Amino acid sequence: MEKNLEGLSEAQKLLVNCNLSIKKLGTCIYDSDLRNYSDHGSESHFVPEDERILAQIDKSEINKFISHNLEAPSFEKAGPKKKLYFEPGSTISAIVTCGGLCPGLNSVIRSIVMMNFYRYNNQITYGIRYGYAGFIKENSYDVQLLTPELVAGINTLGGTILGSSRGNQDTVKIVDRLVELNVKVLYAIGGDGTLRGAMDIEKEIDKRGLKIAVIGIPKTIDNDVSFIDKSFGMETAFSEACNSIYAAHTEATAAANGIGIVKLMGRESGFIAANATLATSDVNFCLIPELDFDLEGKSGFLPQLEKRLVRRKHAVIVVAEGAGQQYVSDSKNPNYDPSGNVKLGDIGLYLKDKIKDYLKKKNIPTSIKYLDPSYSIRSRAPTPNDSIFCSQLAQMAVHAGMSGRTGLVVGYLNGHFTHVPMELATSRRKKIEPYSQLWLSVLEATGQPLTFKNE
Amino acid sequence: MEKNLEGLSEAQKLLVNCNLSIKKLGTCIYDSDLRNYSDHGSESHFVPEDERILAQIDKSEINKFISHNLEAPSFEKAGPKKKLYFEPGSTISAIVTCGGLCPGLNSVIRSIVMMNFYRYNNQITYGIRYGYAGFIKENSYDVQLLTPELVAGINTLGGTILGSSRGNQDTVKIVDRLVELNVKVLYAIGGDGTLRGAMDIEKEIDKRGLKIAVIGIPKTIDNDVSFIDKSFGMETAFSEACNSIYAAHTEATAAANGIGIVKLMGRESGFIAANATLATSDVNFCLIPELDFDLEGKSGFLPQLEKRLVRRKHAVIVVAEGAGQQYVSDSKNPNYDPSGNVKLGDIGLYLKDKIKDYLKKKNIPTSIKYLDPSYSIRSRAPTPNDSIFCSQLAQMAVHAGMSGRTGLVVGYLNGHFTHVPMELATSRRKKIEPYSQLWLSVLEATGQPLTFKNE
Amino acid sequence: MEKNLEGLSEAQKLLVNCNLSIKKLGTCIYDSDLRNYSDHGSESHFVPEDERILAQIDKSEINKFISHNLEAPSFEKAGPKKKLYFEPGSTISAIVTCGGLCPGLNSVIRSIVMMNFYRYNNQITYGIRYGYAGFIKENSYDVQLLTPELVAGINTLGGTILGSSRGNQDTVKIVDRLVELNVKVLYAIGGDGTLRGAMDIEKEIDKRGLKIAVIGIPKTIDNDVSFIDKSFGMETAFSEACNSIYAAHTEATAAANGIGIVKLMGRESGFIAANATLATSDVNFCLIPELDFDLEGKSGFLPQLEKRLVRRKHAVIVVAEGAGQQYVSDSKNPNYDPSGNVKLGDIGLYLKDKIKDYLKKKNIPTSIKYLDPSYSIRSRAPTPNDSIFCSQLAQMAVHAGMSGRTGLVVGYLNGHFTHVPMELATSRRKKIEPYSQLWLSVLEATGQPLTFKNE
Amino acid sequence: MEKNLEGLSEAQKLLVNCNLSIKKLGTCIYDSDLRNYSDHGSESHFVPEDERILAQIDKSEINKFISHNLEAPSFEKAGPKKKLYFEPGSTISAIVTCGGLCPGLNSVIRSIVMMNFYRYNNQITYGIRYGYAGFIKENSYDVQLLTPELVAGINTLGGTILGSSRGNQDTVKIVDRLVELNVKVLYAIGGDGTLRGAMDIEKEIDKRGLKIAVIGIPKTIDNDVSFIDKSFGMETAFSEACNSIYAAHTEATAAANGIGIVKLMGRESGFIAANATLATSDVNFCLIPELDFDLEGKSGFLPQLEKRLVRRKHAVIVVAEGAGQQYVSDSKNPNYDPSGNVKLGDIGLYLKDKIKDYLKKKNIPTSIKYLDPSYSIRSRAPTPNDSIFCSQLAQMAVHAGMSGRTGLVVGYLNGHFTHVPMELATSRRKKIEPYSQLWLSVLEATGQPLTFKNE
Repeated sequence: MEKNLEGLSEAQKLLVNCNLSIKKLGTCIYDSDLRNYSDHGSESHFVPEDERILAQIDKSEINKFISHNLEAPSFEKAGPKKKLYFEPGSTISAIVTCGGLCPGLNSVIRSIVMMNFYRYNNQITYGIRYGYAGFIKENSYDVQLLTPELVAGINTLGGTILGSSRGNQDTVKIVDRLVELNVKVLYAIGGDGTLRGAMDIEKEIDKRGLKIAVIGIPKTIDNDVSFIDKSFGMETAFSEACNSIYAAHTEATAAANGIGIVKLMGRESGFIAANATLATSDVNFCLIPELDFDLEGKSGFLPQLEKRLVRRKHAVIVVAEGAGQQYVSDSKNPNYDPSGNVKLGDIGLYLKDKIKDYLKKKNIPTSIKYLDPSYSIRSRAPTPNDSIFCSQLAQMAVHAGMSGRTGLVVGYLNGHFTHVPMELATSRRKKIEPYSQLWLSVLEATGQPLTFKNE
Repeated sequence: MEKNLEGLSEAQKLLVNCNLSIKKLGTCIYDSDLRNYSDHGSESHFVPEDERILAQIDKSEINKFISHNLEAPSFEKAGPKKKLYFEPGSTISAIVTCGGLCPGLNSVIRSIVMMNFYRYNNQITYGIRYGYAGFIKENSYDVQLLTPELVAGINTLGGTILGSSRGNQDTVKIVDRLVELNVKVLYAIGGDGTLRGAMDIEKEIDKRGLKIAVIGIPKTIDNDVSFIDKSFGMETAFSEACNSIYAAHTEATAAANGIGIVKLMGRESGFIAANATLATSDVNFCLIPELDFDLEGKSGFLPQLEKRLVRRKHAVIVVAEGAGQQYVSDSKNPNYDPSGNVKLGDIGLYLKDKIKDYLKKKNIPTSIKYLDPSYSIRSRAPTPNDSIFCSQLAQMAVHAGMSGRTGLVVGYLNGHFTHVPMELATSRRKKIEPYSQLWLSVLEATGQPLTFKNE
Repeated sequence: MEKNLEGLSEAQKLLVNCNLSIKKLGTCIYDSDLRNYSDHGSESHFVPEDERILAQIDKSEINKFISHNLEAPSFEKAGPKKKLYFEPGSTISAIVTCGGLCPGLNSVIRSIVMMNFYRYNNQITYGIRYGYAGFIKENSYDVQLLTPELVAGINTLGGTILGSSRGNQDTVKIVDRLVELNVKVLYAIGGDGTLRGAMDIEKEIDKRGLKIAVIGIPKTIDNDVSFIDKSFGMETAFSEACNSIYAAHTEATAAANGIGIVKLMGRESGFIAANATLATSDVNFCLIPELDFDLEGKSGFLPQLEKRLVRRKHAVIVVAEGAGQQYVSDSKNPNYDPSGNVKLGDIGLYLKDKIKDYLKKKNIPTSIKYLDPSYSIRSRAPTPNDSIFCSQLAQMAVHAGMSGRTGLVVGYLNGHFTHVPMELATSRRKKIEPYSQLWLSVLEATGQPLTFKNE
Repeated sequence: MEKNLEGLSEAQKLLVNCNLSIKKLGTCIYDSDLRNYSDHGSESHFVPEDERILAQIDKSEINKFISHNLEAPSFEKAGPKKKLYFEPGSTISAIVTCGGLCPGLNSVIRSIVMMNFYRYNNQITYGIRYGYAGFIKENSYDVQLLTPELVAGINTLGGTILGSSRGNQDTVKIVDRLVELNVKVLYAIGGDGTLRGAMDIEKEIDKRGLKIAVIGIPKTIDNDVSFIDKSFGMETAFSEACNSIYAAHTEATAAANGIGIVKLMGRESGFIAANATLATSDVNFCLIPELDFDLEGKSGFLPQLEKRLVRRKHAVIVVAEGAGQQYVSDSKNPNYDPSGNVKLGDIGLYLKDKIKDYLKKKNIPTSIKYLDPSYSIRSRAPTPNDSIFCSQLAQMAVHAGMSGRTGLVVGYLNGHFTHVPMELATSRRKKIEPYSQLWLSVLEATGQPLTFKNE
């Protein structure tokens, strides 16, 4: 029966898809025993097999679905299951980290190892070196046995002890290696490209009729995964970005008509820029990929900046790397990095030049300082709160893997951990809505106009 | 009609109450206009008057309510309303901070002022000095006019620029002063005692037929407010506590059989202790008020500690200040502080002495270091993430106040801001459930036994 | 009589000049009274008028001077004098900060104000806005009265509350302004260019027969002032640089053959690069302006880098901005900034490109991350130790000014504060000696070869 | 011939002793070759055998010695020597850390190991566990082989990887163990007690005619070693203490007549208290062991505190742990800890009680917060500047050891590293002079009276 989605908003229509079920490898036959908790009379810590949590919790929103005879959108709830598919005590798994650095990678790695070792008594967890490339024999990278001793304390380190790389690899070779290593659960930590690679691996596994679970942990410092409220590392990123904003503000106020520009991560979504702006009170202009801006013209950015300078003698600008790409990249002939991401033009340097020229023409002396702290930010160790979040994601991932689920990523929605089908998680990017509470708060924090577009 | 609550758990029964409605002072007749957003065609940023968000989002939990013919529990959703009760541009309000310090107080103060000034164009926001005592004329504390200039940058400072004090004051005098100052909205930031004081003020206002709103912002570093997932300052507190745990661990490992004890905040709830334990990987024992423990006997704490020392030559203990009170306070003749809180016995020093005696008897040389970092923790500036949270709480509070709501606190549940009736918020304390995901994570992080109780 | 300097090293010959005397405006007739200390029987805190401290304290070095019939080189010792030239209680002074930011500027400003106000009872200290430009009436910058209230807490802020600018201004107009403001002591905080400007001002004052003292506080984050062991801000700079090195190391180890390059301040002297290298243990190559390097050839930098990569699979490079300028700037047609400094070519980006090309030719896959944290570093608040040092420099400056000395900068040598004639301080730059203990330590810390020059 | 010391101050008389010579085990016969530096034509990095540096560098001070026909006081200069006593490549050494924690211990350990391994090619450096106790066989502590891999990165950790303990042990057994392990150089890192123990070990070695060098690295967070300007860890300690002062200040300002008390390290010398006071600008009273104070009476501390409260409504007090011991300890029947230090009474708690009582009597409501951050401070990793200092101390120690010197500690004076005979270094404690620049700066920073003593 076809669903009647008329009258639903785009966002609502998308949510209809979340009710997809999660793929399972087979029947769960092993008991999960958390150090004899059950003997103490409690099983309340197990999450029932079919438990789901609502994706929409505004009552008016739910009612719209009900009025369309649609089920309220929900996701499978993550957590420890009473019955396991893989045998605890002998399930071998592997961890791979791919793409750019993100705070918390080592916390995720460590917690998967600890969870396997202590909770499920699995002695063998392999670490794959330098991303998917580590699966390819020709590269001669050693596979690393990850023990509790080896991962002790790594949660206080930035980066990834496994190393990383961009780009996918031959799926057939990867699955050959999984089989050779007798791996039963693969934990793939990475972004969109990595997860698409993981889906291909999962298809190859399925094609061969193998019983290997593929679990994704979405790594996106940009926080741009759909149906997931928050991704690990984002909090650390915007927290650390505050230092650069402080520097930019200090520089800006130290010169007559001083300007500080901070370029922050955010290819298609401005969450880091917006949150860093909110967390300080020093930003006067925040530019994000979601909102186009004109440079010239009455409402344009440059005249607005000029007004601010005249009034206050300094200005701080935060710009997400993906903002204003129409000015700096050739959309007809894009370049791509090995992960398949479009190479972005440098909007920060472009703005710096444009501002310089504009103020020169206006005879306003200035001093412009441009900061690009990306590598310093993404290589940081996670904040304590982020660190806990990483551990929990990792724990949920291992619960999911041991239960024989596959083709999912661990998500976080409305304060709860969820299972999100990989194809759904990678279907589109989450973005800042222009009339959302988040963006309105940014407008109020900066005092910037609603738009830099001329009519 | 009486509700049939049979078969519902205690937690579920309590949730039934959340459907209480929020008190309003009267009809909203003023338009709220956010810098002509509506002219741009959007009203999507306003939260509908009767919007509610679900308090339970596990589908199985909701179904239990439905099967009892009960409405699914929900809370009013916080946020900007299209119609206001108080006139924007001329509504005078007052802010008071009470009780012990908590990271983020200044961020809350600043955001209320900024919100009043820029969003609602209200020029006058008063700061009351030193808690409720500042309302009392006899104390001769000046009332402070809080301007954007005055609050600039205070979000990076710990403490409260207003000062604070414990204890409530004569409600009649307080309301007299509110009337004298022509205050229309009172923002009371404080804990249980403060909120009870606020309820008394609200009753006195009501008795006199005045139209003054009383809005609470729950301040509890312990994170122990019912129906509220997270309270401001908590994240900063456990983040900062990690430094003390690091110190305790460093000290413990530097001596043969070295022991580090860190006492953390947590009068009735162990959230800070539990989260700090999870955020590091150095804690071996975490003791919280929710879980009794024996000292002696096979399963008792001391023999378990001894086992750890023999095996690993050092141990780190985190103990919440309210843990094990049966050992250190006279429950029959309790002492109270001016806020009405029972004065706790010092479980940290008690443990230190007990451990010392025990190990001496066992002829195990040791070196015990005891850290009590409470003042250092609670006086910190908020982390960037906490700072944003404080700002948002404050913004929600002002939206609520301007809409003429009263007798509520701003809450946060399942990732959304809510209105919680004051009497509900103060009705009981939120605690860590022994079989919750949080506590299970602590058990796995520490490796400590499920219980220190002998059968 | 001509001095016989034969047999003395270059460094020794230079030291002969330090025995120059400091210029004084006239006889000191006012008593300095530190809160009646003298009444308590002690005058031991006053530094005798003619006290000097040795510039060389190796006995063998001193003997060389003695054997040449030369006086052992020494500098006038800084500190409070018993007799003052200017009347305490009514001496007006002015502070100006020039050139690029440096950690500690606000600490220096604050301490001059506090010292004037509390120690010498001088109520009026002016702050000149935006460097020497602030003296020029046409610029319409207000002169700021600096009170203890206004400077409270600024020691915890980076930057300068006065603002800064590059370049000198019309000396006649500056002295006119000093006269108009009735300034008796000018405190000029800045680098070489600023101090040369200060000398010109002093000459103009002298020409007019005015009694105005000009005291310099040398600001050079590069630590490159001759006859001065340490300049303020340097410690903060290399301490903060450690974070970027940590980031570069984290990035480098996360990729196969990963390389992290950190460009640090150091136009002609590599002190920040060298100290940051020593303070971490992650740097493998440290390149400084003092030591030329070849890129190609057996001993060249690129082949040495390749060897390291083959052996350890990653490398971290720290390069001072002034290193290898022969590769990136046209020494025949140099460009200058408004401070008169040669504009440096970007050696960091150059190295990045060269390395990339070289490894490509060698078929070694790599991932190179380039960090340029200069603005983040120089805008930091000072470390506690640097902050104390700034305060002491400022105190010494005020003691010098009140005693009627002029044309000097406050120095620090062999653990003591000194007076250094301005022309001596600006005569040449201090550099790292290739066989010094500092550089040998760097060689041992990095394991890099003694030289990257081919024979 | 007896020396005529008449007319010299006490400080000057003490300095006469510094000209003692350093004990050497014998003739140096091995060449020291720093990676063929000499082949490059330079030997300038070697410190001549008999080089000394002046202990006094004020010319007037030196002249006093000369006028007494005394040699100017000087110390042997530390550094690499051209000739070695022990054979590079095969000299075994051992490191022991004793007493309480101090920031930088691991940096010292690491640098000794690296220096041995890379500079002198000595493969074997042993780590002794848990202080001198680790030498005693009966304790069954393993001796640890310290390799570059094992010490990699430990410079970023607080504490000591070797562990520590208080108290000396049987010297005969220690020397037996040194012989058994074939140790040629013992590096003892510790305080007064430890160094006295080291002297006993040296005597036992001498008695047996053994050729084993004993080199001390003075560890005193209090910075109280005579003839040494600065000891490692002190900078980190007072830097970290600033956080507690910030907390105390925040608490104090948050209450009407609020008082914050911070007890800091400093048994007999107030260097940490004084420097922490200078590094912040929040301290109003600084009490140190060197200066007695009355509590009552017109000039007494309590009335002065009251005056401050009346004027400013809050106060911050920093008190060194050894201050005011006459009030809190029984000097006739002192208790001792295993290191032989007198157990101090708790002046912080005493002050808190006295202030409370005093203000109660005066009917001044208050809120007093007491912070004792000692363990948090001493367990920190060193600041970057301290870390470099630790490395250099360690390098100097190894140079001294390899040259066959013994019975010395590495010192630091007037900006240079020195050799100080152990008996001289332990002969008395360095203290803050009441009329020194340091203490005068504290008086000006706090605004406190010159004395709290009634006439």
